[in-house]
Amino acid sequence: MTLLSEIGEKAAVRRIQEIIARRGGRSNIGPGDDAAAIEVGDAYVVITTDLIAQSTHIVPGMSPWQIGWSLAAINFSDVAAMGAKPLGLLVSMGLTPDMQWETLDEILEGILDCCARINTELLGGDTKETKELTMVGTALGRVEKNRILLRKGASPGDLLAITGSVGLAAAGYQSLRKGLGFRMAEKALLEPQPRVEEGMMLSSSQVVTSCMDVSDGLASSVYALSESSGVSFVLEHEEIPVEEMVLEIAEAVGMDANELALYFGGDYQLLFTIKPEGLGKLRSLMGEKFSVIGRAIPKSSDNVIARGRDIVKLENRGYEHFRKDRR
Amino acid sequence: MTLLSEIGEKAAVRRIQEIIARRGGRSNIGPGDDAAAIEVGDAYVVITTDLIAQSTHIVPGMSPWQIGWSLAAINFSDVAAMGAKPLGLLVSMGLTPDMQWETLDEILEGILDCCARINTELLGGDTKETKELTMVGTALGRVEKNRILLRKGASPGDLLAITGSVGLAAAGYQSLRKGLGFRMAEKALLEPQPRVEEGMMLSSSQVVTSCMDVSDGLASSVYALSESSGVSFVLEHEEIPVEEMVLEIAEAVGMDANELALYFGGDYQLLFTIKPEGLGKLRSLMGEKFSVIGRAIPKSSDNVIARGRDIVKLENRGYEHFRKDRR
Repeated sequence: MTLLSEIGEKAAVRRIQEIIARRGGRSNIGPGDDAAAIEVGDAYVVITTDLIAQSTHIVPGMSPWQIGWSLAAINFSDVAAMGAKPLGLLVSMGLTPDMQWETLDEILEGILDCCARINTELLGGDTKETKELTMVGTALGRVEKNRILLRKGASPGDLLAITGSVGLAAAGYQSLRKGLGFRMAEKALLEPQPRVEEGMMLSSSQVVTSCMDVSDGLASSVYALSESSGVSFVLEHEEIPVEEMVLEIAEAVGMDANELALYFGGDYQLLFTIKPEGLGKLRSLMGEKFSVIGRAIPKSSDNVIARGRDIVKLENRGYEHFRKDRR
Repeated sequence: MTLLSEIGEKAAVRRIQEIIARRGGRSNIGPGDDAAAIEVGDAYVVITTDLIAQSTHIVPGMSPWQIGWSLAAINFSDVAAMGAKPLGLLVSMGLTPDMQWETLDEILEGILDCCARINTELLGGDTKETKELTMVGTALGRVEKNRILLRKGASPGDLLAITGSVGLAAAGYQSLRKGLGFRMAEKALLEPQPRVEEGMMLSSSQVVTSCMDVSDGLASSVYALSESSGVSFVLEHEEIPVEEMVLEIAEAVGMDANELALYFGGDYQLLFTIKPEGLGKLRSLMGEKFSVIGRAIPKSSDNVIARGRDIVKLENRGYEHFRKDRR
C-alpha cells in the first residue's frame, strides 16, 4: 500500500502515463507535452487542463480577480508552449456554499480580462459545490500541423533560449511572505502573463526545434526538454536573464538568487531550442524578447551549468506537490 | 452580501452567463448548450467540462472504478447531446495526499474503460493536491457544421422524444440508500452510459430539431428545452418509459414513481424533438431505442403533462447544488 504523499506529483503523472501506454493509448503527442493535440482537418487542436485549489495553489493574499486571471493564464501558457493560437477557455469551478456572489464576480472578471488580453474568450464551464475553492481551466488552441512546437525535437548543437527573465515570481513570493513590498515581483507572481504572442512567433519562425513553458522552475524544465529530446544541455550562468530586483530580494531574505532563478516556478516563460543558423531570423522577428542561455549537447547523465571556469551539475528539482518534504 | 447557498447552482450559472454577455462574449453556441462549439475548418469541435467532488457528487459506496467511469460518461453525455463523435478526454484530478496508488489506478481504469467503450481515448490531464477528491473531465467531439444538435430549434408541432427510460438511476439511489439490492437500478446510477451512438444517429438523421441530455431530471430538461427553443411541451404520462423495477422500488420505499421518473437526474438519456414527418426515418434508423413522449406547442407559461383526462403542470425542479433546502 503506497500513499501519494510518499512519491510526489511527478511519479503520479508517470504512473498515469504508464497505465495509458499499457492500454495501448496514444503517446505521440499529448501525454508528456504541455498540451494534447488532436488532428482536425489540416490543423491540430491543442488542449490542456490545469487545476488550482485554495489550500495548495492559491497564494494567501491573492485577490479573487488574480485567482481568475491566473487560472486562465496558466492554461494559456500551455497553449503558447505548443505555438498555438488560443481558441477559447472552459472553466469548471468547485465553489463553497459560503462564497459570496461578489467574489464569484471578481474571479470571473479576472478570467475574462485574461481571455481579452490574449484575444480569446470564455466558452463555457461548470459550477458545483465543493469543500474548498477548486478551479479547473481547459484551454484550446489551433496550430498548423507542421508548425506545432513539442518538447522533443532538439538536436545537439541547438541553442537553448528563454523568453523574458526567471526568478521574479519566486522573488515575489519571498517579498509577499516577508512583507517587503516589492510590487513588481509580487505582481509577477500573482498575475502571470501567458506568452501567447511569443509562442506564435516561435512557431511561425520555423527555426525552433522544441519548446515548453517554465512553470515548475527553469532547472526542472531543462531536465524535461532534455528527457523528451534525448539531448543534454550546458547552460551559461551569466546568460540566464535575472532581474536586478531578484538579487535585491534574495539579499533581503538571505537566500541565494540562483535558488530563486533555477529551482522555483511561477514565471511561465517559454524555454525553447533554436537551430543555430536560425538565430538571426528569430532575432529579427522577436528582437530582445528572448535570451540564449546555453546549448544542446549529446545526451549525458546530467545537465550542467557553466559558471566562469566551473561546470556544476544542474539539480533536477523544482516545485512539486504531494511530497511531505516539500519546501 | 449574498451567499451562493442562498441562491443555488442554476442562479449562479445564469449570473455567470450574464457577466459573459455584458462583456460582449459569444452567446450563439456555447453557454446554455450542453457543450461549447468552436469552428475548425468545416466542422465544429464541441467541448464540455464537468466536475465531481467526493463530498457532494460521489455516491457513498461507489467504487474507484465507477468514479472514473462516471466522470468520463457524464462528460461524453454532453458530447452526445450535441450529436458529435468523441475526439478524446482530458482529466484534471485533485487528489488527497492520503490516497493510495491502487485507488488512483482503479479510477484511471474506469476512465479508460469508458473511453474504450465509446471508441475514444484519454488525451492528457493534470494532477494536483486538494483537500477532497475532486475530478474534472473535459470531453471533445467533432460534428459537421450543419449537423450539430442544440437546445434551440424545436417548433410547435415537433414531437418530443427520449432515448431509453427514466427513473432507474433515481430508483437505484433509493435501493442503495435502503439496502434493497436492486442491482440493475444501482448499476444504472453508478455506471451511467453516455448515449454517444444515439446522439450521432440523431445528428445524422437530419430530422431532429433540438437535443440535450437529461442529467438533472426529465422535468428540468423539458423546461430547459422549452426555454431555449421558445416553445412549450405537453407530455403524455403513459408514454414516458419507466422500467418495472422503478415502480417496485418506489413501492418498497413508499415514494411516488413519478417523482423518481420526473424530478431526479442521473439517467443521462437524450431528450430531443423531431419534425413530425421525420419520425418514420428515425424509427428506421434507431428502431425502439427511443420513445415519443409528447409534443411541442406554442409557448405558454408552463409545460404540462396529460394523465388520462387531467392536465397537470410539470414542475420546474430537479437536482441542484448549493441550495440549503436540497433533498
